[in-house]
Amino acid sequence: MQPGPTLALARFVARSKGSELPERVRHEARRALLNWLGCAIGASRHETLERAIAALQPFSGPPQATVLGRHERFDALHAALLNGTSSHTFDFDDTHLRTIIHPTGPVASALLALAEHRPVTGEAFIHAFVLGTEVECRIGNAVYPSHYDVGWHITGTAGVFGAAAAAGWVLGLTEQQLAWALGIAATQASGLREMFGSMCKPLHVGLAARNGLAAALLARADFTSSAQPIEGRRGFAHVLAAERDLSCITVGLGESWELETNSYKPFACGVVVHPAIDGCLQLRAQHRLTAEAIEAIELSVHPLVLELTGKQAPTSGLEGKFSVYHSCAVAIVDGAAGPGQYSDARVADPTIVALRERVRAEIDPALAEDAAQVSIRLKDGRTLDCTVGHALGSRERPMSDRDLEAKFLELAAVALDRAAVEALIAACWKLEKSADAAELAHLSVPASR
Amino acid sequence: MQPGPTLALARFVARSKGSELPERVRHEARRALLNWLGCAIGASRHETLERAIAALQPFSGPPQATVLGRHERFDALHAALLNGTSSHTFDFDDTHLRTIIHPTGPVASALLALAEHRPVTGEAFIHAFVLGTEVECRIGNAVYPSHYDVGWHITGTAGVFGAAAAAGWVLGLTEQQLAWALGIAATQASGLREMFGSMCKPLHVGLAARNGLAAALLARADFTSSAQPIEGRRGFAHVLAAERDLSCITVGLGESWELETNSYKPFACGVVVHPAIDGCLQLRAQHRLTAEAIEAIELSVHPLVLELTGKQAPTSGLEGKFSVYHSCAVAIVDGAAGPGQYSDARVADPTIVALRERVRAEIDPALAEDAAQVSIRLKDGRTLDCTVGHALGSRERPMSDRDLEAKFLELAAVALDRAAVEALIAACWKLEKSADAAELAHLSVPASR
Repeated sequence: MQPGPTLALARFVARSKGSELPERVRHEARRALLNWLGCAIGASRHETLERAIAALQPFSGPPQATVLGRHERFDALHAALLNGTSSHTFDFDDTHLRTIIHPTGPVASALLALAEHRPVTGEAFIHAFVLGTEVECRIGNAVYPSHYDVGWHITGTAGVFGAAAAAGWVLGLTEQQLAWALGIAATQASGLREMFGSMCKPLHVGLAARNGLAAALLARADFTSSAQPIEGRRGFAHVLAAERDLSCITVGLGESWELETNSYKPFACGVVVHPAIDGCLQLRAQHRLTAEAIEAIELSVHPLVLELTGKQAPTSGLEGKFSVYHSCAVAIVDGAAGPGQYSDARVADPTIVALRERVRAEIDPALAEDAAQVSIRLKDGRTLDCTVGHALGSRERPMSDRDLEAKFLELAAVALDRAAVEALIAACWKLEKSADAAELAHLSVPASR
Repeated sequence: MQPGPTLALARFVARSKGSELPERVRHEARRALLNWLGCAIGASRHETLERAIAALQPFSGPPQATVLGRHERFDALHAALLNGTSSHTFDFDDTHLRTIIHPTGPVASALLALAEHRPVTGEAFIHAFVLGTEVECRIGNAVYPSHYDVGWHITGTAGVFGAAAAAGWVLGLTEQQLAWALGIAATQASGLREMFGSMCKPLHVGLAARNGLAAALLARADFTSSAQPIEGRRGFAHVLAAERDLSCITVGLGESWELETNSYKPFACGVVVHPAIDGCLQLRAQHRLTAEAIEAIELSVHPLVLELTGKQAPTSGLEGKFSVYHSCAVAIVDGAAGPGQYSDARVADPTIVALRERVRAEIDPALAEDAAQVSIRLKDGRTLDCTVGHALGSRERPMSDRDLEAKFLELAAVALDRAAVEALIAACWKLEKSADAAELAHLSVPASR
């Protein structure tokens, strides 16, 4: 008799050995971790994190673990919560395209906090991380899309399983204990899409990390849960999804790796705008364009672009993320579309406002979602054209390691000087050689207050 | 325009003043707190709590709050989690009959931990407690039964709102902050019925207490959530229930009090067995019955009794709770059906086994759920009959204050001597005169290690 999905996952994690993982999967893990660290450090001064720290600091345990990019230390459970939250604050983290799970936040935030509490080698860290994202994304595959459609924030609900599995492997849990950990995770699965646009959205990632880590710690103490938390009649997959395909959890388990399909955002806004930004940046770089030289920017875009990001006169940084007009204007003026381009100040900047009013967009239903046509008319009469077949960051045109480094560099600059940034990048690439994965956390701490 | 349910609840709590509450509601609060304290202290040595403490102690913050009935002190968030868990471990806590929510655990566990962290008068404590249970039960009313039927453990999912509201009132949150607190609670609502029978079932109550308290603390720091966490399209009532009646939240708010419909279990097993136990205890007391004198016990019971508790030969204490035969046997032999009667040892005891084999039960579909007919044939030829119209603990025949004291006394004896038990009972009854509600926690600590 085949084991059910819960037992199959517990067995898979309990029996997993490091040597199984292909190098390309391990490299994707390093890329994911670099991207995650950048997002977390980049948002380490955001008011979302400031407020969470103010609220929770009086209740923190021993200073076991780092808040990435800051001087404060919290107990490992709180550190997992805070780092998960900061890593999703900019909505700039990675995406498992099949489920739109942001896979790294819950898993890495739990693991790194645990690694600061009890030593974990870099090699074990990478291995546990891959196992965690595999469990998380497979459970997501089983319930997507009905689970997401009804209103669950899938990064929170699936993420808690990934954090539990990864932490459970590091803690050396038995198969039974891992099954309990998955159950303790299942019964904490939560996070509503209604929260999108509020501070609770990133909090979901932090809660998934904290709750998954706690699930593994409780299971290690033989705290029991039920036998079929995922597949049972009153379990996760039935209660939180109208339809499900549990075979997604077990088919090919240990043979394929979900992390290989991971993707990274080059720009700090919704992915539908990325092709247009990409085209503007390409033309800017090729022709050293400035705003003054431009008469008009004319876009042909996928219909979703105007549906989701058609705001012509945004009034805040957050609204700017929902404006293809603002996004193309900052791409030309700043040569970037990072978090800095979606501040209230940039949205109100006269040069950017003047240029965004010269951006026109029309729908071309024949375009793919990751494609766009950009045409820039110059005041000197010339017209410059760029066809973007697949935007940077798409499955067909992934960000290179260098692209990820550049993104990291910009994000981490808020907390770290150039030398510290480069040390952290180097530590990510050679993580598997490290005797102590906690080094990633220590290197994120600013040199002086 | 009427405010939506979230804003209506936030406004109700923010504007509430102590003088509004009728004395009968405040007395029901004292009864509920006494019952809750007994359940928590009674389970304070149970392995469920031992394992949770072992797992979480290394991560606890400053020793702000008591683990009821024990010497350990944890930070207030962990104390809320642990006390909520112990209070539901025996499944002996109170019940809001309309929703089968166990209302006191989530709310009182959050409140008492908070009261140890920052001073709260007894009067304010009672007031906040009533507000919390009102919010919790009204949200439960709005989604019951479809929410429970699909598989949610409603004490966890509704309880987190009650804990947030009660803690939020004590913390003096504004209307906006209370709305945020309800949102942060909503997005943590969790707990699956699949976990029933495992340690996760009581854990749900602890998580509701801890998460609700954290929601209030985060909201106080202006951590935001969305505007319609309960009623929005992707909010609690739509995502976690197939059907809902949101008017249950607002109609009569501030005029009627859900706590008035609270009930308490006299016996430590499922409520369907209570009428039969009650009848056996009455006959035992009236006739000074012993097991040896009895030829047979014949029961007429509601159909659910055999469906839920028809186990004829239980092999563990837990299975004993699902055996009307064992329950009637211990009622006769021990004159009680408390936690002590549902131990592995009592289930294996030869005298009890011999008597339970002489218990026969037949269904009478005409009987109400809280009724039973007990007929005991004695070896001397006599037959003794008892008709139980409404079992002790039912709405029609509530446990008296003295019954609650006796229950408390038995439960608390595991940790406290008689003088300490009586001091705690007295402190409950006169809680509103106390300058410091934390006294309830302090009095629960055993005198010596």
